[in-house]
Order: sequence, then C-alpha cells, then structure tokens
Amino acid sequence: MTADRNPVIGLLGGGQLGRMLCEAANPLGIDIAILDEENSPAKQAHNTNRHVVGSFKDPARIRELAAQSDFLSVEIEHVETEVLEDIEKNGVEVKQADGTTKTHKPPVHPSWKTIRLIQDKYLQKEHFRTSDKNIPIAEQVAIESGPAALDSLKNAAAKFGLPFMLKARKGSYDGRGNFKVDSEKDFEAAVTALGGLSLYAEKWAPFVKELAVMVIRTEDDNGTLKNCVAYPAVETIHEDSICTKVFMPPRDVSETVCAAARKLATEVISTLWGRGVFAVEMFVLEDGSLMVNEVAPRPHNSGHYTIEAVPQMSQYKAQIHAVLDLPVPQKLTPRVTSSIMLNILGGATPSAHLPLAELARKTFDDDMDIHLHLYNKASKPGRKIGHITLTSTTLPIHDLETKAQPLTDLVNQIRHDRITASAETLRPTTTTTQPTPSTALTPAPPSQTTSPAPLVLITMGSDSDLPVLSAGLAILREFGVPYAVDITSAHRTARYMMEVASGAAERGVRVVVAAAGGAAHLPGMFASETPLPVIGVPVKATHLDGVDSLLSIVQMPRGVPTATVGINNSTNAALLAIRILGSSMPEYQEKMKRYQANMEEQVIEKGNKLREIGDVEYLAAKGK
Amino acid sequence: MTADRNPVIGLLGGGQLGRMLCEAANPLGIDIAILDEENSPAKQAHNTNRHVVGSFKDPARIRELAAQSDFLSVEIEHVETEVLEDIEKNGVEVKQADGTTKTHKPPVHPSWKTIRLIQDKYLQKEHFRTSDKNIPIAEQVAIESGPAALDSLKNAAAKFGLPFMLKARKGSYDGRGNFKVDSEKDFEAAVTALGGLSLYAEKWAPFVKELAVMVIRTEDDNGTLKNCVAYPAVETIHEDSICTKVFMPPRDVSETVCAAARKLATEVISTLWGRGVFAVEMFVLEDGSLMVNEVAPRPHNSGHYTIEAVPQMSQYKAQIHAVLDLPVPQKLTPRVTSSIMLNILGGATPSAHLPLAELARKTFDDDMDIHLHLYNKASKPGRKIGHITLTSTTLPIHDLETKAQPLTDLVNQIRHDRITASAETLRPTTTTTQPTPSTALTPAPPSQTTSPAPLVLITMGSDSDLPVLSAGLAILREFGVPYAVDITSAHRTARYMMEVASGAAERGVRVVVAAAGGAAHLPGMFASETPLPVIGVPVKATHLDGVDSLLSIVQMPRGVPTATVGINNSTNAALLAIRILGSSMPEYQEKMKRYQANMEEQVIEKGNKLREIGDVEYLAAKGK
Repeated sequence: MTADRNPVIGLLGGGQLGRMLCEAANPLGIDIAILDEENSPAKQAHNTNRHVVGSFKDPARIRELAAQSDFLSVEIEHVETEVLEDIEKNGVEVKQADGTTKTHKPPVHPSWKTIRLIQDKYLQKEHFRTSDKNIPIAEQVAIESGPAALDSLKNAAAKFGLPFMLKARKGSYDGRGNFKVDSEKDFEAAVTALGGLSLYAEKWAPFVKELAVMVIRTEDDNGTLKNCVAYPAVETIHEDSICTKVFMPPRDVSETVCAAARKLATEVISTLWGRGVFAVEMFVLEDGSLMVNEVAPRPHNSGHYTIEAVPQMSQYKAQIHAVLDLPVPQKLTPRVTSSIMLNILGGATPSAHLPLAELARKTFDDDMDIHLHLYNKASKPGRKIGHITLTSTTLPIHDLETKAQPLTDLVNQIRHDRITASAETLRPTTTTTQPTPSTALTPAPPSQTTSPAPLVLITMGSDSDLPVLSAGLAILREFGVPYAVDITSAHRTARYMMEVASGAAERGVRVVVAAAGGAAHLPGMFASETPLPVIGVPVKATHLDGVDSLLSIVQMPRGVPTATVGINNSTNAALLAIRILGSSMPEYQEKMKRYQANMEEQVIEKGNKLREIGDVEYLAAKGK
Repeated sequence: MTADRNPVIGLLGGGQLGRMLCEAANPLGIDIAILDEENSPAKQAHNTNRHVVGSFKDPARIRELAAQSDFLSVEIEHVETEVLEDIEKNGVEVKQADGTTKTHKPPVHPSWKTIRLIQDKYLQKEHFRTSDKNIPIAEQVAIESGPAALDSLKNAAAKFGLPFMLKARKGSYDGRGNFKVDSEKDFEAAVTALGGLSLYAEKWAPFVKELAVMVIRTEDDNGTLKNCVAYPAVETIHEDSICTKVFMPPRDVSETVCAAARKLATEVISTLWGRGVFAVEMFVLEDGSLMVNEVAPRPHNSGHYTIEAVPQMSQYKAQIHAVLDLPVPQKLTPRVTSSIMLNILGGATPSAHLPLAELARKTFDDDMDIHLHLYNKASKPGRKIGHITLTSTTLPIHDLETKAQPLTDLVNQIRHDRITASAETLRPTTTTTQPTPSTALTPAPPSQTTSPAPLVLITMGSDSDLPVLSAGLAILREFGVPYAVDITSAHRTARYMMEVASGAAERGVRVVVAAAGGAAHLPGMFASETPLPVIGVPVKATHLDGVDSLLSIVQMPRGVPTATVGINNSTNAALLAIRILGSSMPEYQEKMKRYQANMEEQVIEKGNKLREIGDVEYLAAKGK
C-alpha cells in the first residue's frame, strides 16, 4: 500500500466473478487489471488503463498483464498454468522509464500448483485422499484411454458395482463431462459421449443434499499457512447441472453437520497452496456423513450471498485481502438469519428475465431485503446473467423461502419457458448428468419437485423397470435432451398417475416414455389422459419373456395410440423420442442425422474389416 | 427498461457522490454517463463510452451529455440551471443513424426549478416559510448590496439583536460564505469578508445538536407527488465547517424528536419539484424544537451510512430508482441497531490517511462491521478522500461509539497533524464560520471537545470580553485561520486555566490571544504556563478606561513576556497572530502582504480623493 499508486491485481478472465471482484475493489482503492475481451462484464465495472484486450489463454497477453500487475490471480481455473509458473519463477521483462529493462516477478495467487492440481479432478481427489487429513472422497479409479478403455470400465464395474459415474478428468465445468453408467451396455456410449477425454470412474454416491463452504486461505510469502477460515455452510441446488439456488443456512441440515462441513472444508483447503478464497463442494450422504466432491480455487456462485450476508468480508473482498496479504478475520459470522441466492439465467428471449428483475426491483418487505445483481452480459438461453440475493435479519430459512416464493416461481417459470421455447430460439440446456437424488428411487428435494418439466418424461410402473430404461436415459443424455423421471404405477398409484399424465403437456413435456411389465397398463392409461405422444417400453417380467408386457401396451383400442418399441428396447424408445423432438426442433434433427451417419460409418468399417480379414479371423478378434 | 440497452442517466459532476452512484448502478444494470474531467473518481468506477470530458458548468458539454442520456441529474447543486431548463423545454438535436436529426428532451431530476431555488439560500428558506407546511426556519432578512448594505445591516441588528448570522445567498458550500456578526463594529469587516456577494441576515439560533434526514421524493411525469419517504434521522458533527462524523441514531436525542425530524423533512421536500433523494439539515434548539437549516437536492454526506445500514435501498440506489421512476419502498428501516460514519480527510502528507485505512482494514469485531470507502482522489489536506462506515446489529449507538474509539482517535490525530503540519505542506482548512454551540458560552458536544486544537487559541477571562474580541475573530476568519475560543478565568477557574495553558502547545496551538479586563492577570499567568507567544488584549472595564487592564498585562516581570496590543484592539491582536503564523507559514505571509497592499491602496485612494475634492467636501461626503 503506497500513496503514489494503488496496488494492482492482474486477473485472468473478466466475467461476472471478475465484475463482482471489481465492485468490491473500487471502494477499497485497489486496481484490477482484466485480461479478457473488450468491454467484458468486469471491465465495465472498473475503469483503468491497465486492462489488456485478448484471451486469458494467450501466453503473450498473460505476460503483458503480468508486466503491469503486482499480483496475478484467476477468475476461472481453466488457464495455462505453465505460463503462470514461468512468470512466477522467471518473471517478465519490464521496460523502465530510462529505457533499460527489469525482471518483474508478480506472485500468483492462488498458486499455479493449486490450479494445475484442481484442473485434473482425478488427481485433485487423489491428493485429498492421500493427504494426512483423512478427507472423505468417493472411491475412484483412472480409466485407460484407447482400446484398453473397455476393459478398464469392466474393472471399475467389478470394483464399484453399477451404477457408477464416469467423469472427464479435465475441462469439465457446470456438470459437463459427467456420465452415469448404469449397465455394461452403456460402456461404449459413455466412451463415445465423453470423446477422447481422459477419464476416471467414481463409485456411485447416493447423496441426499449438496453443501458448499467458501474458505479464505492465506499464507506468508514462504508458503507457510497463516489462515484457513470458513464461511457458513450453504445448501446448493443444481438444475440442468448448473447451480441455480443457494440456501443459507441449509434447509433441514443439523448444525452438527454444518459445523462438520466447515471443518472439513478448512482441512481440504489447508492441503493446497497459495492465497485466496476457495469453494469446497460436498455431498451429505444418507447417514449424515460428508463426502468432498470438488474444489474451485476462486470466488464461487455458492458464495455470492456473502456480499450481503457477511458484509464486512464478502468472498470478493476476501479474495482481494487474501491475494494482497491484507488482514482477514478469524471468524466469519453472517449478519442475517437467513439468505437465499437465485441465479438469473438467460431465458427463451433476450428480455425473458426482465420481469424477474422488475419483480426484484419492486418487492419491499419488512422482513426481507432483495438485492439485484445484473452482470450486463448479453442474454442467451441458460447463461448466467445475474443473480438475486434475499436476506432477512429476522426470519429462519424456511420462512424466508416462503416469502421468496413469488421470485422463485418466476425463476422456475423462466426456465420452463426457456426449455419449451419454439425451435427457432431454443438452445437446450445441458443434460442432467450429475448424480442427483431425483432418480425416482429417492424422493426429490422440494426445489426439484417444483421445477418445471423438461422435454421428455420417462415414467415407469415400478423402480424395477429402471435398469431397463438406463440405456435409453444414456441416449437422452448423449443428445443433450432435458428429461425427468418418475414412478407412476397404473395399479398402485392410479390417481397420481392420472394427475401426472393430465398435467404433462402443461409442464412443457413433449414426449412421454412409459415402461411397464406384465399386465402393462401404464403406457395406455397414460396415453388416455394426455394429448402427447406416448412411447411404450415393454419390460420383460418374470414370466412369458415380456410378451405379456408387449401385448398389453401395443394392443390399445382405436383412438388411444401408444408408440410401442421392442421388449426392453429403451434405446429405441429414446431415439424415437428424439426424432419426435427433432421434427420441430432442428437441432435435434441435426444431431439425429449425425448419429445415423456415425452408425453407418461404423457398419461400413465393420464390413470393410470383415471383407479384409474374413469371417474366421473376425470372430476370433471378437473373442468368439 | 429494454433488453437492447441499459437506461442512461447523464450526471453533471463526477466526484465521490457520482462514484458511489456508479457503484450502486453497476449491479442494477444502469448506465451512468459522467460529465467531468478525464479519470474523475466517478468515471473510474464505471466504464462506458458515454462519459463526456469537460466541465459540468460548460453548456456545450451539458448538451453533449444530454444528447446521449435518457435522464439528466446532478451530483452538485452549483450548476447552470438555465441550460437544464432549456434542455428540458426545448431539447437537444440528436443525429440519427439515417443522417436526419431529432429533438431529444431528457427529463431533468431533481427539477432545475428545485436546483435554482436551492442555489439561493434566502429564497430557499422564504419558499419554506411561505409554504402551507408551516416549516420552522430562522427569521431572515435580505441585505441590500452596495452603499445601502450598512443601513440594511443596522436594520437586521435592530430586528434580530446581536449576534446574528450574515450569509451569502449563493455559492456557499461546506459552511463557506457564513459570517457571525457580534457587534456593529463587525459590519464593515463582514461585508468586506463576504466580498461582493448577495447577502442575507439570519437570526442567531442557539442550537444544541444538528440533525439531518435523507428523503426520497418521486412524482409522475406530470409533476404530481407520488412518494416522500424519509430515512432515519442522523446526528451530524461539523468540524472546520465540514461534516466529519455522522451518528445513527442521534446520540441523546429522543425518539419523539427523531420522528418529528423525519416528518418535518418529508414536509420540506414535498414542497419541491422533481424526483431524487434530498438531504434536509436541521437544528435541534434548546427546547427540543426543530429548525430547518438547508436542503441539498442530491445524495449527501449524511446519507453515506445508508449503503450498509439500509442495504436494500441506499441513498444511491434510491437516487437511481427515483430518477428512473422505478418503485421505492414506503418505509426505510435500518437493518442495524447503530451506525457511525467517519469521513477520511486528506492529512498533512499524501499518505497521512493510510494508517486509518489500514486500521479499518484490520479491525474485526464480533459486534461491529467496518466498511472502508476510498474515493481514489489525490489526497490534499482537508479534502474528502474517503469515508468509513461502522455498523452493528447488536450495539446501541453509545457502545458502538466506544468500540469505534481507536478509529475516531486516529481521525482526530490526522486532523491534528494536518493543522500543525510544517509550513511547506500545510494548507489550512476553512475557518469555523457556521453557528455552532462551541463558542464557549455553551458546553460543546463531546466530539467537539475532543477535537484537536487549531492554530490560534483565543481565550478570555469572562464572556463579557467576547464582544471586544469579535473584530479580531472576524479577521481570523477572513484570513482562513483555524482557531478555537475558550473562557479561562485566572481567578475563578485557575486550575482549568493552568491546564489549558500547559497543554496548548501540545494541542498544536501556535499563538495564544488572551483578553482580560481590570486586574487582568490572565495573559501573564497564561504566558507563565506555556512556551507559546501570548498576545494580551487589555479590555476596557468599568473603571479607569482600561488603563488598569493594560498595565496588568504589559508590566510583566522579566522572563515571562506578553505581546500586548492597544486597549480593546482585538483586530491588531489577530493581525499580530497572523504575522506570527506567517513567519513560518508562507501562505499567511502572502495573505498578510495582500492585506497590507490593500490597506495602502485604500489610503492612497482616500488621499487622492482628499486632494481632489478638498477637506470640506470630503468631510461633507462622510456625513460629518
């Protein structure tokens, strides 16, 4: 801190996290130099002649930024750590006023070592597992690439059982790069879906809640840990694999578990390197125990609430204090009794979110304050373009949730409209791929049951039908189709089934897939209560090899059709559903064309090979 | 509110008020176009290609700003209202994309009518007095300009008694342009001091406390009042005529008085025109009644605390909501139990305030939050370069005050150091000219007794000496010398006198003026307890025409000098004090040179006139 000029943090990336960092930096007299596109959200909120125009992945621009910064930091972890390492170790040449050059070595916080570790989710968790802190993580195993992948997957299945999660080690973000493997039949699709990525398999963790804890970490210039201080634990809700809602304190989670989450978070972060704020995402399992999911080495969506709820030391102010090695508090106490953060995501049209901003602007309440944050980003469907934080100094979280209902309803409505928007403007959101408790077997948490319906509803007469459906679900994920699953037994929950069927179209569902076995009445009964196309999947039951199911579904009276596919053939049910969507939504049609071309190529290749090596060698190569 | 671009408020002025307006506008998605110098504080906190470089007094630049703004507003009331009136009535020509021009009429809020009225403090108060709201203001009378001024002043004295306040009608700011008239002898000095300004006289109001209330005013586009909502009442402390501290709630003021202040503030603002936030400054008189002092038609120093204490609707957010005619709450409830705002003023050196910022950065407390706001302005002595807001959700105001003591002490220390700084770096602050209760006759409120001492201490044996000293005090004000006054009777408060004398040098006082009559022991006794030069003013008492006083002061024994001036000649005492200051402080020496040259000119002029018109006519012209 000198009087002649403000300290400068050079930041790689200028999105909303950088923008809120600038908003915190302005009153503190700290200069933030942003490396990103001209007029990026962060640059709009802070005017300095030190901004650099270019990509935060361009080593030359990073060096340009470093030359005029006292510290370097990141807004996103997907950066080239090699450049950061080189800058910290060897510095950059800076021209002096007298024409000579000087080597300048701005410290990088958090450390490039931490960023590099975190970029590889497998190594990240291996690091936690092998640390002396006994950090609970899901069992995991690296998957071989290339031809050995399938064997490697088989080993994982043998080790973990089914289902298990297949995840990309690098480059994943907002839940992308995850694939739930339900049966051996998924292996090929999974490897195809995740392309040539380096993968690892993770044991399925049936969790009941997701928590997150922000932590401030500081160390001295020799790397000796000084502080590791946790913010309150919060509950995070993910929809379409994006964090959409945050609750502080978590709903229906004991103080003991919250305290354990904070302690665990500080232990996790203490094993890393460098200064800054970090998010620790974790699962609460059915027995109340915690499991660390992953870490973000930067301010995080789950910490936006701190701007108003921990006003003296928001996560953004903390990031500035930590990076500059200014003092940080030893205790982070919220000054409100409860807080809810709602993300504003771009809707079906560029102005679809405006009614939400308007409602936030005009809602005044004796017991609730509403804080609007717009990022001034162009609105695109599903893009994070703002957030709303609700706080109360009097209400407990459930009462605040009730007060917040009109806003939450509107958030849900915008999502609903986005998903059901006309083909011309719709961009489907990413598919639901993270392990979530909403797969019919566990009651979904409230915010997920109140969510509007996706494009395809997959329902079944019994959870015993789920394994048959998993192949079809994998196809839907592969095509990026938003879907929902449910259990609606025609015989045991007749009224609920009728209710779901008659409301499906209104929820925005466009196609229903119904699976049932034996006297399989569900698809037909469902079809009688909805105008939507219903695809029936006959499930092979104990007797008669599934013929009972097939006939019960296909033999509908005139007037109430069901689109029946082969016994247990949920793959075809899913592909049929996508073709139906594709008839009005060009994107799905294009995807279907590529899928078909791909199948053709594979068969042609096989034919080439068969002609080339002959049937005997061919069968031998297949191990038959 | 449209999706294609953000609403634009064009703002005249880009200081700290504009900066905090920008800080509030960024998360709201509102664009603020600033008309002020390149890189002014407001422009640093908001990046837009709509900023205009130039003076906010330049009509051409104001028109340029108007051409690209949806609304016009002001950060300061000292602007040319004629241009604003013309723009609102006749618009500005804006070039369209197709080459044609269109007339664009951005509304001006608050109305130019309000700004124009408020610029003339006399008319402003006449407006309040003659409104149907029965608004209590001090009795006032306009003072004629030119040769009629003296008669006009005599009438004011006859009407109001002495002392009374003489004030400039226009252009006054932070207490400048005020003059306390203690006796008829001050008339000429007062008129000289206030130059050719248009003046008015105001009855002396002996107040015990100063309060301020911010009000949000909205009206529809036809000018029909919609809302007039008051923030909590706060206590303001002025030092060197600058608001330096704000207390919410006011200390030792009943809730009844606070409620009355809020009600009065809304009544005052309801009589004005346009939308925006307004500050109403008022006095609490000895009987607990209120008197309106003046109004500021914009965000105000006394409302900075709302950023954290009324977080959903700070005065800056309210200014944006009001100007854009967005909804405003019907009730403004603080979410904290108490709040204190401390201004950070530039100190003796450009880095003098840094320890204060550092203390604010490192103080963490379970019951108190500290919020630092730096304006990124170059530090100059006495300049407002930042503020600190303290809030508590648990403590009452007096306990928060206790907690805040280390910060307050440092604020006071910086002021002390500034005032006593070496001649090379010192720029004296403006003189104490507002009516304050600290003029010895009334006990000063706590924050004022703890203030560090100014450069000259004027003390007297009895308040009956004050009228004699008033001419000298006027000189000190004219020269811009910071001074303090006290009563230290050598006979009746001997111990207190010794205490003040022995502590004077340490307080930073450089010269003492001591006045006494009869057996006038004060100056000599004072001199024996301080190493400072003591100027003695013999006051003519009941007997002996002041000879007793003169001899008592001048006839000191060897070793303890007093600098004695003529009987009742406080003017010379003040000029002597300034010469002493000027010997080490070039600025005062320069002023003294100009003062002397001015005297010379006047005498030469008189000589010229006497030679020209002869003694008979000369005397006749003087009415003798």
